[in-house]
Amino acid sequence: MKQVAEKRPFDILNNALNTNVLVKLKGDVEVRGVLSSFDVHMNIVIENGEELKGGELKRKLGTVLLRGDTIVFVSPSAP
Amino acid sequence: MKQVAEKRPFDILNNALNTNVLVKLKGDVEVRGVLSSFDVHMNIVIENGEELKGGELKRKLGTVLLRGDTIVFVSPSAP
Amino acid sequence: MKQVAEKRPFDILNNALNTNVLVKLKGDVEVRGVLSSFDVHMNIVIENGEELKGGELKRKLGTVLLRGDTIVFVSPSAP
Amino acid sequence: MKQVAEKRPFDILNNALNTNVLVKLKGDVEVRGVLSSFDVHMNIVIENGEELKGGELKRKLGTVLLRGDTIVFVSPSAP
Amino acid sequence: MKQVAEKRPFDILNNALNTNVLVKLKGDVEVRGVLSSFDVHMNIVIENGEELKGGELKRKLGTVLLRGDTIVFVSPSAP
Amino acid sequence: MKQVAEKRPFDILNNALNTNVLVKLKGDVEVRGVLSSFDVHMNIVIENGEELKGGELKRKLGTVLLRGDTIVFVSPSAP
Amino acid sequence: MKQVAEKRPFDILNNALNTNVLVKLKGDVEVRGVLSSFDVHMNIVIENGEELKGGELKRKLGTVLLRGDTIVFVSPSAP
Repeated sequence: MKQVAEKRPFDILNNALNTNVLVKLKGDVEVRGVLSSFDVHMNIVIENGEELKGGELKRKLGTVLLRGDTIVFVSPSAP
Repeated sequence: MKQVAEKRPFDILNNALNTNVLVKLKGDVEVRGVLSSFDVHMNIVIENGEELKGGELKRKLGTVLLRGDTIVFVSPSAP
Repeated sequence: MKQVAEKRPFDILNNALNTNVLVKLKGDVEVRGVLSSFDVHMNIVIENGEELKGGELKRKLGTVLLRGDTIVFVSPSAP
Repeated sequence: MKQVAEKRPFDILNNALNTNVLVKLKGDVEVRGVLSSFDVHMNIVIENGEELKGGELKRKLGTVLLRGDTIVFVSPSAP
Repeated sequence: MKQVAEKRPFDILNNALNTNVLVKLKGDVEVRGVLSSFDVHMNIVIENGEELKGGELKRKLGTVLLRGDTIVFVSPSAP
Repeated sequence: MKQVAEKRPFDILNNALNTNVLVKLKGDVEVRGVLSSFDVHMNIVIENGEELKGGELKRKLGTVLLRGDTIVFVSPSAP
Repeated sequence: MKQVAEKRPFDILNNALNTNVLVKLKGDVEVRGVLSSFDVHMNIVIENGEELKGGELKRKLGTVLLRGDTIVFVSPSAP
């Protein structure tokens, strides 16, 4: 496992707990809100979530569980 | 497994048992109804389910088993 | 496994054996008929099956084995 | 495994050996012919196979090995 | 494993070694040529391969390794 | 494992740590930025990330975790 | 494993190391260049890579890591 960097990708999820993140899902849907929990499959819970479509607010979701295998990326610092 | 938060994503399914949830599926289909059961694959049973398309009621499904790998998100608090 | 509810999603398949079910498949195809058997992969056999497209009868299939990973949902009580 | 019915889905493949079946594949392709063999992955060999597109004969395939994970359904009794 | 037929699907690949086959891939691409080798994942090597699109020769590929999970079907006897 | 070359594909990720890379994702999205970490699933963290669509800057993402199974390619030397 | 031919598909990757190959990816993208390394998942590194779209050069990629599960075929002898 020498080829694996010492910093690990999931560290950024751990560091982003309780802060705002932007999650891009397959099929041009995005969810923005506070990262509340995640697991090793990248299943993610967002609090105060908002569903975005084409960058526009589509609706407020409140608490939402995002299934890991539909996630394209998670950004803790996107505007 | 240090990188995994102590709150776990499936907790929100457990907390939402017997309450209304909104489930978004791949392919622009949504199902709304009472969460009755789920398993580790995120297979979910909804009671009094309604199938929505484009936000409109398409038909009443009653009891429905949703296959986990078609789920995009589950929201216990969406309007 | 504390987070898994005591009722299990596959229970509704077991309860629906020998009754009418509606199965939605990926790609906007639906099959309606009598649930005859299923396995842990959600492979399902329907007897007296009818293939529906856009809600209309496309053709009668008789006995049909539906592959689990193409299933979106199974509803024992859809109209 | 109490939730699994005693009849098993693959039984209908076993019973259909050496008879005509209709196989629907992902992407609106169908193959019709005599079921010659299958395995646990639902890989299937059809003899005297015909490829159908939109219900019309597209070409004769003779012997053809269908990969299991492209199968939507198999019907031994479709017209 | 009682439900598995004694003839096995991969037998037809074994029997087709060094003969012409037609391979249909996902996304409406086909490759025709001499079956040179295969493995348990259905990865396949074709010699003197030709890529077809809509039934027409698109280009000559010579030797080509086809990834198993993109294969829809393999026919040793298609015209 | 004789067929595996001594140079390994993940070596180029290791060599590219802390340098600019271009990542092409499924669905015609690209992300450009500094490779910060990766794991064996090819989950990748990019710092100072920019999301590109059709070659044009769509927005600045800052830190972003890209899920491995949405990646098409990673190029450390693309312009 | 009697059904597996003695020549193995990955042999052609091994034989093609340090020579030009054409790699077709899902989504109508192709990459051409020198095969530098590969692994058992068919992850592949190409040196002096060129991205092609519709047969035309889209851009030069230099070194590029192609994720195995996006590969349709690899041809060491395509023109």
